[in-house]
Amino acid sequence: MAYNQNLLDYHEDLYPSRIGNTPHLFERRDPVFYGQSSDPGPLNQEQIEFYKKKGYLFFQDLFSQEEIQRYRDELKILSDTASVKKAPQTILEPERQEVRSIFDIHRTNELFNQLSRDKRVTNIITQLLNSRVYIHQSRINYKPGFQGKEFYWHSDFETWHQEDGMPRMRALSCSITLTENNFYNGPLMLIPQSHWYFLCCIGKTPKDHYKSSLRKQEYGVPDNESLRKLVDTGGIVAPHGPAGSVIFFECNLMHGSNSNISPWPRSNIFFVYNSIENTLVQPYCGLEPRPEYIASRDFTPL
Amino acid sequence: MAYNQNLLDYHEDLYPSRIGNTPHLFERRDPVFYGQSSDPGPLNQEQIEFYKKKGYLFFQDLFSQEEIQRYRDELKILSDTASVKKAPQTILEPERQEVRSIFDIHRTNELFNQLSRDKRVTNIITQLLNSRVYIHQSRINYKPGFQGKEFYWHSDFETWHQEDGMPRMRALSCSITLTENNFYNGPLMLIPQSHWYFLCCIGKTPKDHYKSSLRKQEYGVPDNESLRKLVDTGGIVAPHGPAGSVIFFECNLMHGSNSNISPWPRSNIFFVYNSIENTLVQPYCGLEPRPEYIASRDFTPL
Repeated sequence: MAYNQNLLDYHEDLYPSRIGNTPHLFERRDPVFYGQSSDPGPLNQEQIEFYKKKGYLFFQDLFSQEEIQRYRDELKILSDTASVKKAPQTILEPERQEVRSIFDIHRTNELFNQLSRDKRVTNIITQLLNSRVYIHQSRINYKPGFQGKEFYWHSDFETWHQEDGMPRMRALSCSITLTENNFYNGPLMLIPQSHWYFLCCIGKTPKDHYKSSLRKQEYGVPDNESLRKLVDTGGIVAPHGPAGSVIFFECNLMHGSNSNISPWPRSNIFFVYNSIENTLVQPYCGLEPRPEYIASRDFTPL
Repeated sequence: MAYNQNLLDYHEDLYPSRIGNTPHLFERRDPVFYGQSSDPGPLNQEQIEFYKKKGYLFFQDLFSQEEIQRYRDELKILSDTASVKKAPQTILEPERQEVRSIFDIHRTNELFNQLSRDKRVTNIITQLLNSRVYIHQSRINYKPGFQGKEFYWHSDFETWHQEDGMPRMRALSCSITLTENNFYNGPLMLIPQSHWYFLCCIGKTPKDHYKSSLRKQEYGVPDNESLRKLVDTGGIVAPHGPAGSVIFFECNLMHGSNSNISPWPRSNIFFVYNSIENTLVQPYCGLEPRPEYIASRDFTPL
């Protein structure tokens, strides 16, 4: 599927969702890989084909254990800092006062700002999106041991389109694990190939949905039948490995995680890179945009 | 550790719990394996040693797929039957009207009664406990896809001792899976070797605790530090395999499960076999015993 600049009509909603009572899946209307296979870049042909087909890439050793330790130390300081816990950028666990996520970390913290620009990551991103990029969202997720709550299945793009006004699927998430990911600590689960379909969800977005959705999503939630179809096609994977592993996944890939009763916390740093050809417009749900710390409107390329 | 019949003083509480504000672990005061290694039985020496050390045994193919299909069909009928849903033996998911567990299934259903007496299971049980046995508890657990909730870590014996009056550790659970157990559908997780330690939990048992504890346990809940110690020693395992797999685990083995957002339900049939040398006395928490369908006082051996 060739990429056509003329399709970029920001006024037309190519991915309608939350508009009716019947969910349905339809094929995506955008490429997955925007480059040419012959373009130079860190990914080889096989990796590009894998990404196109499955919607993700997993690397076990992009970062050294020493580097990861620095990020972990920094996270520890942040989650123990009272002012950070009270900041609007910080999301606490439902019914608890423990940090679940800290948003906008690339703008508030120098160490994580540098990390967001690390060439080992950005060279892969720009090869896949074939464009300069900016950071749409950044966050650290801290899933504590014993009581880490599940995160239900969702497509990030569905939310970013509806609530942030991201017009097209030309964005990519990068998750850098700060702790070992194993089968017991509620690892990120992906539904391979699900990025090829957009799921039009039911319901209508309420005002200020983000205030509750970051704890527990209630709109833009996939229905069981569609999820079953996607899993029947692509299965489920939970890439696992030591701290420092990196998962790249396409903005429309369905993902989620189970709870974590193991003693092992699961933390990761999460950057969303969006193409500067795909900057935000008004949210398609018709409401006010979410705050800058969740969906940046500073489109300055890295 | 030799087994000493004289220790069986039913009036002495060898496993005090829920009595103070400080949790602590101490070594169990009972054998794990009650037989002689040279006794004839289905388990070989290696399996017995594994069970003694780790506290569980896992078999992938004790039952055929045809047998399992019959049990699954029966479960489907039961969970669709209105009278079953309303019975006190049936526990529904928190906040939902879906069946989570049906207790006392070996007394209310002929098919499951036969299963509870199946020689492939009972010969292993009697070899390990070296005694005739009766069924202390039976149930079917149905963990639905998409919304299956977690079950926090616990030792069954802690509850059976406190709330049912089971004096000693001479009982064994057998879980027969009715669906595939995999890493994504919230499989049973065990902490190997944890059966060697009794965890004295904090708190005091409230009256009629069972009415809420079968949905969500609030007393007899292990503390984080003790759990961490146990996991540091034994790790975590989640035996997985096709429907029809069987897990035997010692009554004091710490276990639990994460939530299940996968589309795949996880169902199993669960029988608890107790030695007729270890029949129930008054509950050690000092309250009324739980109902018969949760803790049988019919000690007739199988």
